[in-house]
Amino acid sequence: MLDNIDSIEVLGLIAACLTTYAFLPQVYKTWKTKDVSAFSLPTFSLFFVGIVFWLVYGILKESLSMILANTITLVSSFTLLVFIFKYRKR
Amino acid sequence: MLDNIDSIEVLGLIAACLTTYAFLPQVYKTWKTKDVSAFSLPTFSLFFVGIVFWLVYGILKESLSMILANTITLVSSFTLLVFIFKYRKR
Repeated sequence: MLDNIDSIEVLGLIAACLTTYAFLPQVYKTWKTKDVSAFSLPTFSLFFVGIVFWLVYGILKESLSMILANTITLVSSFTLLVFIFKYRKR
Repeated sequence: MLDNIDSIEVLGLIAACLTTYAFLPQVYKTWKTKDVSAFSLPTFSLFFVGIVFWLVYGILKESLSMILANTITLVSSFTLLVFIFKYRKR
């Protein structure tokens, strides 16, 4: 798989870094403020399931950047989903 | 490009539908409530730029599902970004 790293894959890795890193400030902010009132639960649920599919797709496509990105995004989106269930007003 | 639709691509299209559709309830909720206090601006900015890179990557990889998903997600994440700038407290 590692010999697949060409110029296209470099672009994919930049994309992977950006969309993966992107979630960290949100996880940190939500962890600190416990404010989840503005979040849409359907959005974060569907997004999480979607990322599972993207990860499988990335594995089957042997795309290193997709595998890396979606594995980490799976963890951060799951964390946000846990926060939403934990901190939402019932 | 269209003859590339095989079983792997079907999986990608399901992933594309899920992560693309996922943003719509959030866009609708934010449009209605105008509540963006819980959102992290760095998250949505980095995510938007990341999606631009994923779109270019999808085009170069000739991945129909990535092109479809990232084009629509580009629009919805841009909409959310506009909402955040418009409704945040200064």
